[in-house]
Amino acid sequence: MRYLNEESIEKIALGAAVLGTGGGGDPYIGKLMAKEAIRKYGPVRLISLEELENDQLVVPVSGMGAPTVTIEKIPAENEVTAPLEALEKVLGRKVDVVMPIEIGGINSLYPIIAAAKKELPILDADSMGRAFPEAQMVTFHLDGFEPSPVTMADEKGNTVVIYPKDGVWSERLARALTIEMGGSASVCDYSLFGSDIKTTVIPYTLTLAEKIGEYLLDNKGKEHLGIQKMLEELKGYRLFEGKIADIERHLSGGFTRGSARFEGIRNDQGREFTLFFQNEHLVAKEGEQLLCSTPDLIAVLDAETGFPITTERMKYGARVLVVAFPCHEKWRTLKGIETAGPRYFGYDFDYRSVEELQKEGERCID
Amino acid sequence: MRYLNEESIEKIALGAAVLGTGGGGDPYIGKLMAKEAIRKYGPVRLISLEELENDQLVVPVSGMGAPTVTIEKIPAENEVTAPLEALEKVLGRKVDVVMPIEIGGINSLYPIIAAAKKELPILDADSMGRAFPEAQMVTFHLDGFEPSPVTMADEKGNTVVIYPKDGVWSERLARALTIEMGGSASVCDYSLFGSDIKTTVIPYTLTLAEKIGEYLLDNKGKEHLGIQKMLEELKGYRLFEGKIADIERHLSGGFTRGSARFEGIRNDQGREFTLFFQNEHLVAKEGEQLLCSTPDLIAVLDAETGFPITTERMKYGARVLVVAFPCHEKWRTLKGIETAGPRYFGYDFDYRSVEELQKEGERCID
Repeated sequence: MRYLNEESIEKIALGAAVLGTGGGGDPYIGKLMAKEAIRKYGPVRLISLEELENDQLVVPVSGMGAPTVTIEKIPAENEVTAPLEALEKVLGRKVDVVMPIEIGGINSLYPIIAAAKKELPILDADSMGRAFPEAQMVTFHLDGFEPSPVTMADEKGNTVVIYPKDGVWSERLARALTIEMGGSASVCDYSLFGSDIKTTVIPYTLTLAEKIGEYLLDNKGKEHLGIQKMLEELKGYRLFEGKIADIERHLSGGFTRGSARFEGIRNDQGREFTLFFQNEHLVAKEGEQLLCSTPDLIAVLDAETGFPITTERMKYGARVLVVAFPCHEKWRTLKGIETAGPRYFGYDFDYRSVEELQKEGERCID
Repeated sequence: MRYLNEESIEKIALGAAVLGTGGGGDPYIGKLMAKEAIRKYGPVRLISLEELENDQLVVPVSGMGAPTVTIEKIPAENEVTAPLEALEKVLGRKVDVVMPIEIGGINSLYPIIAAAKKELPILDADSMGRAFPEAQMVTFHLDGFEPSPVTMADEKGNTVVIYPKDGVWSERLARALTIEMGGSASVCDYSLFGSDIKTTVIPYTLTLAEKIGEYLLDNKGKEHLGIQKMLEELKGYRLFEGKIADIERHLSGGFTRGSARFEGIRNDQGREFTLFFQNEHLVAKEGEQLLCSTPDLIAVLDAETGFPITTERMKYGARVLVVAFPCHEKWRTLKGIETAGPRYFGYDFDYRSVEELQKEGERCID
């Protein structure tokens, strides 16, 4: 057990923006909220899976909605804890531990706010090892756990409890409500006891995010060193360096969808690259050649500072370094690829690991 | 107390189609389901407001969705009782009495199915005195009662409990879920104790629907006599007789919206009329002259049989008699008109009662 303080939040926010692969909500907002919560209620206890008791009730707390909305509509502290309180009412018992549903973006910080306010420990783990756009894209779903009961709340004072038929219906109903609620909502789903949690979550991902943030922060002015350390830690690859030549982004079905075209710079001068995203980056290509695809991670970094840029913040003319990391092995199973592989998102090709793709096109590795 | 048998269902279905003002779902489907339920579980007890105990829990059971969908997707018996069972679980107690939320169309029969299956009495009252398209258009809302908790279920096995901020949010969230659920769902909202129910509902409307059905059924072959009795009972007016010259209908936002143009026949030869609807008929006009508008009732009857025709079943070339009735006085209050008057539905004119409009244009009265 250790405590998360304002400095940890700063690092986690940065690391989570990398692991968020461009999505998961803007961590800047989450950082402000989490730091404010810690100032108000004190540091938050971070516990490991080993410290978790089998009979403790663990509840993921997250925000749902298109990042585009969250940037403009900062969630209130009460909105974050409302679904937790609704869940306690439904289950007729107290929650013991909260956890992030995903490690990417604002959702790595959301449960820290809840933990601070409710004086609960937070588990050093998540159920994606990255960010994904849909609610069933969690290891809970891969391992056959049901999301029910799902509790939701908005800032207007509406609360909803969903008993969905399965994870896919959970996503559909919660998404429809989120849109009606104005584009963002707070959610608790897949609440499980410690004994089950231990079998299904991806451990140490808050610590991992913190470590990545530390590499980048500690090497300000020596960005390439920070990025190098991060790539080593995550066994990652440089895909390309480029300038954003074109960006198309629209809000549809409660998601931010779009693509960005890049003109290569420096070593990649004269080449053209494209990224496709649905909240998160899903596919990276050079012309028709695949460089990396979901469920592997693609992150866009500012070429100068090395700091991650969300899909929301990508702007015409920005000079970026695009990197990729292998996903957790659970996403490389048949069910993992079925749930979050390229075909699920409507792309007509099979998943191939970033390691395999990068071995073929070695020229992309720096 | 008396029992509703298959014959009562037959009459209620017919009368409810008149009071449904073209909407409320096709009562033919509801009739088949209610008769089947009575055959299976026995006759249903109909109790009056006077027989209701103050501490009895009364729960409206209804179907939500565009009638267009209900015609093609007959709800299963379990779908009708599922929100009732969800509510009992939420409240931790048994429901004592069910009631119709509206007297129009399928929703006058929906709670009969639930009553039969759960062996509960049904209250001889409703909260509209007609059918309306939106969930907050109920006397409960006019009288300041909250809909919460709202329970919903679909035929796929999804159940949802909504704690909405108010009646309008209840409508918005439930409607978004209904659309996602495939266009139709079962709902329980505004559950209240007998003491409150007595202050807010419109009494004897199931008996009224049955009486209207009886007038029409008992006067087969002498249709004008049946219609005359109905108009006397409801203090109604003949608006016009016409042939449907044009009908435009589309599904949007979970509603069936559209308009129908009529060429006058018989006494109305040479004149032109229009009806506008959103599930229910909302406005009747001759050219630019208003004949009747919501919250007063407009019903379309087959000119030959005198039987009501829903907006769904209106077809090019059909010869119809269009009639109108004054709404319950609760709809003529400031809040009533604000909630369900013409301006709420986007029409740019003030509400004027059908009595007043028909006094001006006496020529419309037969």
